[in-house]
Amino acid sequence: MSGDESYVLVTGGAGYIGSHTVVELLAAGYSVVVLDNLVNASMESMTRVEEISGKKVPAHQVDLLDKDAIRKIFQTYKVSVVMHFAGLKAVGESVELPLLYYHNNVGGTVNLLQVMQEFDVKNIVFSSSATVYGTPQYLPVDEAHPTGGCTNAYGKTKFFIEEIVRDLCNSDKTWNAVLLRYFNPVGAHKSGKIGENPQGAPNNLMPYVAQVAVGRREHLTVYGSDYDTKDGTGVRDYIHIVDLAQGHVAATKKLQTGCGCVVYNLGTGVGYSVLDMVKAFEKAIGKTIPYKLAGRRPGDIATVYANPEKAEKELGWKCTRNLDEMCEDLWRWQSNNPYGYSKGES
Amino acid sequence: MSGDESYVLVTGGAGYIGSHTVVELLAAGYSVVVLDNLVNASMESMTRVEEISGKKVPAHQVDLLDKDAIRKIFQTYKVSVVMHFAGLKAVGESVELPLLYYHNNVGGTVNLLQVMQEFDVKNIVFSSSATVYGTPQYLPVDEAHPTGGCTNAYGKTKFFIEEIVRDLCNSDKTWNAVLLRYFNPVGAHKSGKIGENPQGAPNNLMPYVAQVAVGRREHLTVYGSDYDTKDGTGVRDYIHIVDLAQGHVAATKKLQTGCGCVVYNLGTGVGYSVLDMVKAFEKAIGKTIPYKLAGRRPGDIATVYANPEKAEKELGWKCTRNLDEMCEDLWRWQSNNPYGYSKGES
Repeated sequence: MSGDESYVLVTGGAGYIGSHTVVELLAAGYSVVVLDNLVNASMESMTRVEEISGKKVPAHQVDLLDKDAIRKIFQTYKVSVVMHFAGLKAVGESVELPLLYYHNNVGGTVNLLQVMQEFDVKNIVFSSSATVYGTPQYLPVDEAHPTGGCTNAYGKTKFFIEEIVRDLCNSDKTWNAVLLRYFNPVGAHKSGKIGENPQGAPNNLMPYVAQVAVGRREHLTVYGSDYDTKDGTGVRDYIHIVDLAQGHVAATKKLQTGCGCVVYNLGTGVGYSVLDMVKAFEKAIGKTIPYKLAGRRPGDIATVYANPEKAEKELGWKCTRNLDEMCEDLWRWQSNNPYGYSKGES
Repeated sequence: MSGDESYVLVTGGAGYIGSHTVVELLAAGYSVVVLDNLVNASMESMTRVEEISGKKVPAHQVDLLDKDAIRKIFQTYKVSVVMHFAGLKAVGESVELPLLYYHNNVGGTVNLLQVMQEFDVKNIVFSSSATVYGTPQYLPVDEAHPTGGCTNAYGKTKFFIEEIVRDLCNSDKTWNAVLLRYFNPVGAHKSGKIGENPQGAPNNLMPYVAQVAVGRREHLTVYGSDYDTKDGTGVRDYIHIVDLAQGHVAATKKLQTGCGCVVYNLGTGVGYSVLDMVKAFEKAIGKTIPYKLAGRRPGDIATVYANPEKAEKELGWKCTRNLDEMCEDLWRWQSNNPYGYSKGES
């Protein structure tokens, strides 16, 4: 790095959303430094990001529970903005091991915020989730919808962190924070070089579908076919990962206006059912995906999709990639990298 | 300690509520070990507790942010139950320094719970607060009232910890937790040897009144005299500290029934106004307390008092000490110890 260069520090930058966001930040001219504890990610993604961008990205294996290691990064790099993705994210695991989630996600974030405060770096984009809305009281869900109704520890860590960041911004008006509530990110970078790389059986629909398509799984199980939706399966707001990543670039620009604490949905505003998604993927790959219908999973809800108007109005950002593109890009990644960043089934 | 003896570990045991609870636990036959970081307490209270009880209480200066120090205590003592009082508690400070509160209160609690898990000690009584109810939607407030509406970081740390403990109990049915939501503890032990010992200007009404009475403060300021209450001043549910402490003994017995996660209000069910309290204290001490009326403080609410029926029914516990006793006992403590545990104004 050069002496005067200022960096966007991306925590969890080697992960799915992190790596795609790094690509878009680099494309927008930002210098980026990545932290990742590699618990659920691979440094191979960083190599691929450098291939895509033609730029070097310094990346450090750092756990946010290690406050001194965070400090060292801030001593080494002049950081202007932190983009905070790092965190455990498996809903089911969070129900079984809630302390692990509170310790890692909330504890790690408080450490990060304290170090930012120490170094007078007071601009953050936080990776939140539509899960903070719990069961929607109305649709589409806008940012004024009540939060905190989620029932799993993963979702609660997102909600708690939102509250902590909000309190921090209220206590010190020189802080700026953009809280981004993601709907359902899917797809991959157009190059097919980076994408979602779940460890073990995927928890989310589309990575599972893609693994069935590539022959790693026999069939898809569809949980719940008696919801009050057009075909009985759950309806979600799927958003192309590159659209989502570009939302983060828009958020970074927003920070520079001295926005205080603001919150935006990142979604398309359109809901697709599980079977819609399966059909679209079948169309993209030209073959059928075998699936079985099963009972509902506890905690799952029928329908949720975003009202994305606030982000369009205030960030000048909206989604431009449609369902076909999500499926085609996912397939390119999955078929080029049947085992993700590893060489074979681990 | 003897080899087979099992202990109630009391975090924050040197503080106001902690020290009174230790006295009642000892009286009920429990062995007690105390942890306190002494940030807001004095070991002198432990000496006084030993005088009152005629028993030895091992006490260690340990901060819950130091996980290894907690482990050492669990290695040294056979702990059967943890009673967790430790935490920062100044509402105003929490608004100014929210990260400090989240780091200490939530981070410290998660450390404690993780160490308890490691040592297979899965019984906890947690010191929560009626502040988790936020502005009451109905009165009296019962345990089914929605929580999470509080607006300051102190109150949110109580709410977050309740949620964390609840998730933990849901994840592992061998955990038992009693969450106690305190209303407004006042008064002191009958001996006059232990009591509330605020550092700096008291944040709460009655310690302030007592300091005026003893000549340390010129007059009381009453914040808000135009509330919709009988005399315009705020109404709260004041509970004698010894009643509150005895509620903890009842909670300890409840844990032994394998109760899972349960929650109880600790209050009297009766609301008194600020001016009621001032008059009662004047009666107890036989002189007037000068006061001035001032505007409302942001965040304060008009009226809150408990529905204490659930605790009476399920814990077999209820308050037996009235307002006069609260004032007389407070005055005995304050007049015998005008500067609390220190020799003079610090």
